[in-house]
Amino acid sequence: MESSSIFRLAFILSIVIFLLTHSWFHLYKTSLFLSSKTNFPPTFKTRKTKFDSVLETPIFKVKNTFNSSPSYPLDPLTIQEINKAQIIISSYKPFLGSFPSIRSLSLDEPEKIQILNWKYGDPLPPRRAFVIAWANSQVHLLIVDLNLGQVISHVQNPGSGYPPISIDDVRVAIRATLSNEEFNKSIVARGVNFSDLVCTTPSSGWFGPEEEGKRIMKVRCYSSQGTPSFYMRPIEGLIVTVDIDKGEVIKILDTSPKIPIPNGENTDYRYMSQDKPPEMKPLNPISIEQPKGPSFTIENGHNVKWANWDFHLKADQRAGIIISRARIRDSETGEPRSVMYKGFASELFVPYMDIDENWYFRSYMDAGEFGLGATAMSLVPLNDCPRYSYFMNGLFVTADGKPFVQPNIICVFERYAGHISWRHSDLPIHGFEERIRESRPKVTLVARMAASVGNYDYIFDWEFQTDGLIRVTVGLSGMLMVKGTLQNSTNEDDIFGPLVSENVIGVAHDHFITFHLDMDIDGPINSFVKVDLVKEENPSAKTPRKSYWKAKRKVIEKEKDAQIKLKLYEPSEFHFINPLRKSRIGNPTGYKIVPKGNAASLLDLDDPPQIRSAFTNNQTF
Amino acid sequence: MESSSIFRLAFILSIVIFLLTHSWFHLYKTSLFLSSKTNFPPTFKTRKTKFDSVLETPIFKVKNTFNSSPSYPLDPLTIQEINKAQIIISSYKPFLGSFPSIRSLSLDEPEKIQILNWKYGDPLPPRRAFVIAWANSQVHLLIVDLNLGQVISHVQNPGSGYPPISIDDVRVAIRATLSNEEFNKSIVARGVNFSDLVCTTPSSGWFGPEEEGKRIMKVRCYSSQGTPSFYMRPIEGLIVTVDIDKGEVIKILDTSPKIPIPNGENTDYRYMSQDKPPEMKPLNPISIEQPKGPSFTIENGHNVKWANWDFHLKADQRAGIIISRARIRDSETGEPRSVMYKGFASELFVPYMDIDENWYFRSYMDAGEFGLGATAMSLVPLNDCPRYSYFMNGLFVTADGKPFVQPNIICVFERYAGHISWRHSDLPIHGFEERIRESRPKVTLVARMAASVGNYDYIFDWEFQTDGLIRVTVGLSGMLMVKGTLQNSTNEDDIFGPLVSENVIGVAHDHFITFHLDMDIDGPINSFVKVDLVKEENPSAKTPRKSYWKAKRKVIEKEKDAQIKLKLYEPSEFHFINPLRKSRIGNPTGYKIVPKGNAASLLDLDDPPQIRSAFTNNQTF
Repeated sequence: MESSSIFRLAFILSIVIFLLTHSWFHLYKTSLFLSSKTNFPPTFKTRKTKFDSVLETPIFKVKNTFNSSPSYPLDPLTIQEINKAQIIISSYKPFLGSFPSIRSLSLDEPEKIQILNWKYGDPLPPRRAFVIAWANSQVHLLIVDLNLGQVISHVQNPGSGYPPISIDDVRVAIRATLSNEEFNKSIVARGVNFSDLVCTTPSSGWFGPEEEGKRIMKVRCYSSQGTPSFYMRPIEGLIVTVDIDKGEVIKILDTSPKIPIPNGENTDYRYMSQDKPPEMKPLNPISIEQPKGPSFTIENGHNVKWANWDFHLKADQRAGIIISRARIRDSETGEPRSVMYKGFASELFVPYMDIDENWYFRSYMDAGEFGLGATAMSLVPLNDCPRYSYFMNGLFVTADGKPFVQPNIICVFERYAGHISWRHSDLPIHGFEERIRESRPKVTLVARMAASVGNYDYIFDWEFQTDGLIRVTVGLSGMLMVKGTLQNSTNEDDIFGPLVSENVIGVAHDHFITFHLDMDIDGPINSFVKVDLVKEENPSAKTPRKSYWKAKRKVIEKEKDAQIKLKLYEPSEFHFINPLRKSRIGNPTGYKIVPKGNAASLLDLDDPPQIRSAFTNNQTF
Repeated sequence: MESSSIFRLAFILSIVIFLLTHSWFHLYKTSLFLSSKTNFPPTFKTRKTKFDSVLETPIFKVKNTFNSSPSYPLDPLTIQEINKAQIIISSYKPFLGSFPSIRSLSLDEPEKIQILNWKYGDPLPPRRAFVIAWANSQVHLLIVDLNLGQVISHVQNPGSGYPPISIDDVRVAIRATLSNEEFNKSIVARGVNFSDLVCTTPSSGWFGPEEEGKRIMKVRCYSSQGTPSFYMRPIEGLIVTVDIDKGEVIKILDTSPKIPIPNGENTDYRYMSQDKPPEMKPLNPISIEQPKGPSFTIENGHNVKWANWDFHLKADQRAGIIISRARIRDSETGEPRSVMYKGFASELFVPYMDIDENWYFRSYMDAGEFGLGATAMSLVPLNDCPRYSYFMNGLFVTADGKPFVQPNIICVFERYAGHISWRHSDLPIHGFEERIRESRPKVTLVARMAASVGNYDYIFDWEFQTDGLIRVTVGLSGMLMVKGTLQNSTNEDDIFGPLVSENVIGVAHDHFITFHLDMDIDGPINSFVKVDLVKEENPSAKTPRKSYWKAKRKVIEKEKDAQIKLKLYEPSEFHFINPLRKSRIGNPTGYKIVPKGNAASLLDLDDPPQIRSAFTNNQTF
């Protein structure tokens, strides 16, 4: 209820070209994950008996089978295929001496035309792995043909930029920091016990040509004394810069030893740790009820069929959820009609609005640097996803090329929220014998993933409606990224965000999320149409009306013309149409893209973070 | 799936001054309503056995008790009080000759200060009725004191404008039309059977000073032959203008006898009438499950208590749903804290973008002209509202001053949609023994009403979250307002909207919905704060960051400065703060107003419809 919320969550609907150099990565070692044998978090049972509002009923079904062989051309690589790729790479001549650090190893998807022509029963197109590797301070892009058993393409350093941050990079950076004398002195001087020290490695951003040719990381630390919510206890003014190729600290910024570490009191957010329930009337149990179970099926682990929809769903280390080949049945003929060839979150840009030395570089790219799939933890049944959810694992690859399982990171469920899909009541004045009152409840299908990128949790929902609409929603949860300050009462002019507690600033920032949406409306030949609503004056004196607006359609010829800055007073609609397929009365079939919750980046176009995230310059393309 | 959807649904968040001259009205005679004895529409049972997706379970409870005496100062007038007011008016000297036509009769709410000081156990403030009446071609505003038994205030013609359209007005207009020879000839010439004729009375708008001093209505007719969806079969180019005070047709516009009446085939939208189910896999039953029933209580018919919220809820003939005195408990102290004194939809402006003689005047004000409560029909249990809904009646007043019941027009229910209210997973790299995975499901409370204003159905949802958020959503359903045309294939340049079927145009238009939100954050003394996010250049060469944005707060002194046109590239936040109440660290308590789905009117500022709906010139105030 405090007026301190100037953290903007923004979605930019953007059909961006998928930049390979933006990278893929994995964050965890196999061992970490295989030790997590249960789907339930340890606190789950206890918490539920405390003050819970969701029905305590058994989970409907949690299927976690992995297919040993793929059944659809877009299916992710199997455990066997990943192992095979690892063997091929390890016996590949350039890497015979030492196995490279694998930053991404995933299906090299066949060309769209191959997928579109493929039918069940056909042999699968050649299975290939696309690999981003790091070796000898070089980026290597490989294509490994699993059928031929060999590397068929190998490109080095295809452009600027580096592969994503890996757990190895994190280790190097933290080891270098912890073994640095100056750093240790500062920690001691600040009165922090080393046993309470938690260090994170915020990405360093990119700040112009001077930084090129070096892979640097920043290290920032916290005290976890008395709280699991160490993010609330930053050790402010101490930033270590590490050259991770050399494993050396190249700079220690130790500016503000007097800034206290914020008090950890009341920062433990866990239900378990609450002294007393919140001051409210407890809620009775509530749930979504489906006595006959859900109406969707998932064939071969990835092909989702529900109502009039079918689509392919998979987890991806970088993009999180990937929806492919979404098709809907024609309501009259029952024929499946193509809607979207592929859709996924392409980037998530989070620039902080603080220019001081400790903060200026914070301009995260959470998908490319950390990975939305890689940071997606297992969903909590009943609380993250309702009772009749189907859970799907992610199968990713470690730095040494081995498969690892991220359990239950996607859930699929049917939603009934008391919404009305369509209704009409007729007024009794029109004299029909039976007053008409027609109403249809709205049931939808949701595919969900929650990416925990450090302090923030992004909840991605892809929702399908029977009327053909696909709605993508991103929820932001987790905790604020905060900054320590000497201030303990509000005096806002000289800080970069509101004081949210004693000695804690919530630094102002944006979250821009862009989506790759490859729409294939009734097939791959589509046009992008900008429909401007343009005010016209009434040319005739016949009526006293002076003005009106008219929809002016314009097929966009060049991508440049599709880069649009939204304006409330110059509104447009955005349609993908198939000019080859017309309705009975001659309208092209089409699909409307509706941007919602848009925001614009206010940074200078030549500011390094904005140069790097130029995909947020416009709200489309 | 066709690219023909350029009908804009827009919400303008607008704290508008409630214009009394915009009027209140009632649409139906008591008899119409008292004859509708069942809560179920006649088609309900049959349809459910056909292709239904909602659980066939008994309704939890439908309470429709009316209190004989009010228990809270904001409670609507009771049946007894309405009857008493009617008697007082009928014995009021100026109306002794003939009872005036009552266009609105509702509680004259006591001053805010009286309400805020009132406590349970105190006597109620004087009960008064505010009356808008029409008599001798004059507007009469009365205040009737029910305790004193007399009219205590009487103002005639307080400003320009007329009371809302009444059923009597509609009858006069239609009777005059049907008895007009020229009109009847045209109907015969167009081949329409009189038994199929359905006429509606679109409001005539306001088109400058020439029209002042006359109450005029337009009459437009349809053929209902072969379909209950007569809106799809307009008799185009035939508009009758009636002076409803004189009961005379003053103009017949008969321009386009050659435009065919669109074919009625496949326009019957009723489930019952469908030949075959839609081409999709049928859905299993689904519902919201609450084995212990809902967690809210409604005391004395109007005081809703749920979780940490309490508020007063009532139906209003003009505004639909009125929420008053919304308060939330402080999460630490349990004290109720004021959030909103009153909130309701204040107007709904629907201008059509067609300048021809038959259409230019269509610039509806659905709240002021027709009434959102007056056009709200009974909700359909299970389809309009989920299983454990509580239904509330509307109690309105007829033209002769008698109470009538609009049954089940509001429903209140708890929603669980599989949403997450808050979650956080900690990455395993931070070394905590127990990996943290905390997630809380989101349960909300919804109060709903659906206003069927002719062809359109507006679904108003007021949703309350336990974190203090109130979300107002308006869904648009029903049918398009269409226009007949000679065209039967698409050639868009010369028409005012896309061809949606043979000889049918969907005329382009907007829906602007404004809200009256009287926020009382921790009490009535509040300031409106505009928080501009302003780009700043980095003044220092210390860091390579060039730019950032900063939140600049400005307390708005004059209402004029609060009239804001939203701009994506000059973003602002809007806070109501209580300068008298500060948080522990000195921030004023406050509440953020987040405009969503905004649209701007593109009409000329001096265009008559825009002059009349100048409240849509800006997106606030």
